[in-house]
Amino acid sequence: MPLRFTIQELSKYVEEIFPQVKDDFEILEISEFGSRVRLIVNFKHLRPGNTISGPAIFSLVDCTAYMAILAKLGKEALAVTTNCSIDFMRKPSGEADLIANCEILKFGKSLVVADAKVYSEGSEKPVARASVTYSIPPKK
Amino acid sequence: MPLRFTIQELSKYVEEIFPQVKDDFEILEISEFGSRVRLIVNFKHLRPGNTISGPAIFSLVDCTAYMAILAKLGKEALAVTTNCSIDFMRKPSGEADLIANCEILKFGKSLVVADAKVYSEGSEKPVARASVTYSIPPKK
Amino acid sequence: MPLRFTIQELSKYVEEIFPQVKDDFEILEISEFGSRVRLIVNFKHLRPGNTISGPAIFSLVDCTAYMAILAKLGKEALAVTTNCSIDFMRKPSGEADLIANCEILKFGKSLVVADAKVYSEGSEKPVARASVTYSIPPKK
Amino acid sequence: MPLRFTIQELSKYVEEIFPQVKDDFEILEISEFGSRVRLIVNFKHLRPGNTISGPAIFSLVDCTAYMAILAKLGKEALAVTTNCSIDFMRKPSGEADLIANCEILKFGKSLVVADAKVYSEGSEKPVARASVTYSIPPKK
Repeated sequence: MPLRFTIQELSKYVEEIFPQVKDDFEILEISEFGSRVRLIVNFKHLRPGNTISGPAIFSLVDCTAYMAILAKLGKEALAVTTNCSIDFMRKPSGEADLIANCEILKFGKSLVVADAKVYSEGSEKPVARASVTYSIPPKK
Repeated sequence: MPLRFTIQELSKYVEEIFPQVKDDFEILEISEFGSRVRLIVNFKHLRPGNTISGPAIFSLVDCTAYMAILAKLGKEALAVTTNCSIDFMRKPSGEADLIANCEILKFGKSLVVADAKVYSEGSEKPVARASVTYSIPPKK
Repeated sequence: MPLRFTIQELSKYVEEIFPQVKDDFEILEISEFGSRVRLIVNFKHLRPGNTISGPAIFSLVDCTAYMAILAKLGKEALAVTTNCSIDFMRKPSGEADLIANCEILKFGKSLVVADAKVYSEGSEKPVARASVTYSIPPKK
Repeated sequence: MPLRFTIQELSKYVEEIFPQVKDDFEILEISEFGSRVRLIVNFKHLRPGNTISGPAIFSLVDCTAYMAILAKLGKEALAVTTNCSIDFMRKPSGEADLIANCEILKFGKSLVVADAKVYSEGSEKPVARASVTYSIPPKK
């Protein structure tokens, strides 16, 4: 299954369809097997204790997996997140961006399952791990 | 275990410690057994298709469960989310607020487990369900 | 959606198709909204400390939700478990049977989502909670 | 943290404490970072369609992660499973054994988080993925 976008094309497309988040994420890598995305951390992502909020980490996981799916399915993609299970393992510093690595484990006709690990940039111990399931509606 | 806050006191405390989210949530109910919180939906919570984003739903679940824990533990609470598993079941309309009902299933010395269901205001079919675990660090 | 089985019919059908587990479970209730099933605890379900093993609790959750689905879909049911998230909250005694209450939260065309709570018989505090997702393959 | 057991010692210890499962599992590898365990598939693990049951896959995941923890904590280990989230992605054949690879992602003082992937022996596409959390009670 060849990719439908380059990183530049995908970034531009996401800016169009998700104006709310266009300054939050930077797509670093997309391939047949997964994706890597940066969360550009700013004030709205922080919580007390100079750390990054759970919802911000969740949004990075969801975005990263979605980029991998869009890259394969193209603009007609209507995949919706149906499940996410996330473990928060270490408190990230609010001073560093977060990077998520996502691996596609199954790309079925109706379900996609992916795994992601999230790191503070420059650190090797994961801040969080997550698995996400997307449902792809049948083509009409 | 009596509650350490009234709704008014808890709302005020949250405004102090979470300035980022103070206009997003309204605490509707807190009790020994759980909590009910509203997400006041605005543009930043939306995604294409006039629906509410997954991260916004996640933030409501996390906030609702955290309110129930704060209400029991008081200001010294340092509980951190360690796991969340969430199922997104129906697309909420972007026109209605979301309401989460959270039930505490276990309030242990080191772990709290809670269940939440999220509804579009006025609807009886849940938009999402989630379970959340918090870890309470040992007192020094 | 009317039920396709009585409890007696469903029990008999399960005995036919799952000979491995026919002495483990007793169906207590099936309805449009969910199901209730007993795990008849015996030696193979136990683990050290006179408690019941995680896999035995998992099997009860999976069976209970599957009974609710079979009751609605009938013998042609081909639903497969795609996700289960389970929280083990209290150690059950090995002396009492376990009872699972399952509630169907969404019965979609391709995905079913259910929630279950598991109790030691006679106790009000849940031993475990779980959510399960089943995928229903498209009809040919 | 050095390992407290060799594979032979750990296998023998597990036979002593889990007589119910001693013929089901073979420990293939233990290290500081994780473990690899085989489920020796037999009739009781099967379900209709000549495939392996969900509870059998769950038991393999739980056992594999527990081996990694025992190897680090030694005989005094009292770790209990508190959460498991599992995605079933492909139907394994009932003719092949299953192999689980488990990676420890966090080994904290009170919580251990691990990730596992399960394969049919000889196959490269995972049958299931799971994450598991164990709670380690404080030493008295």
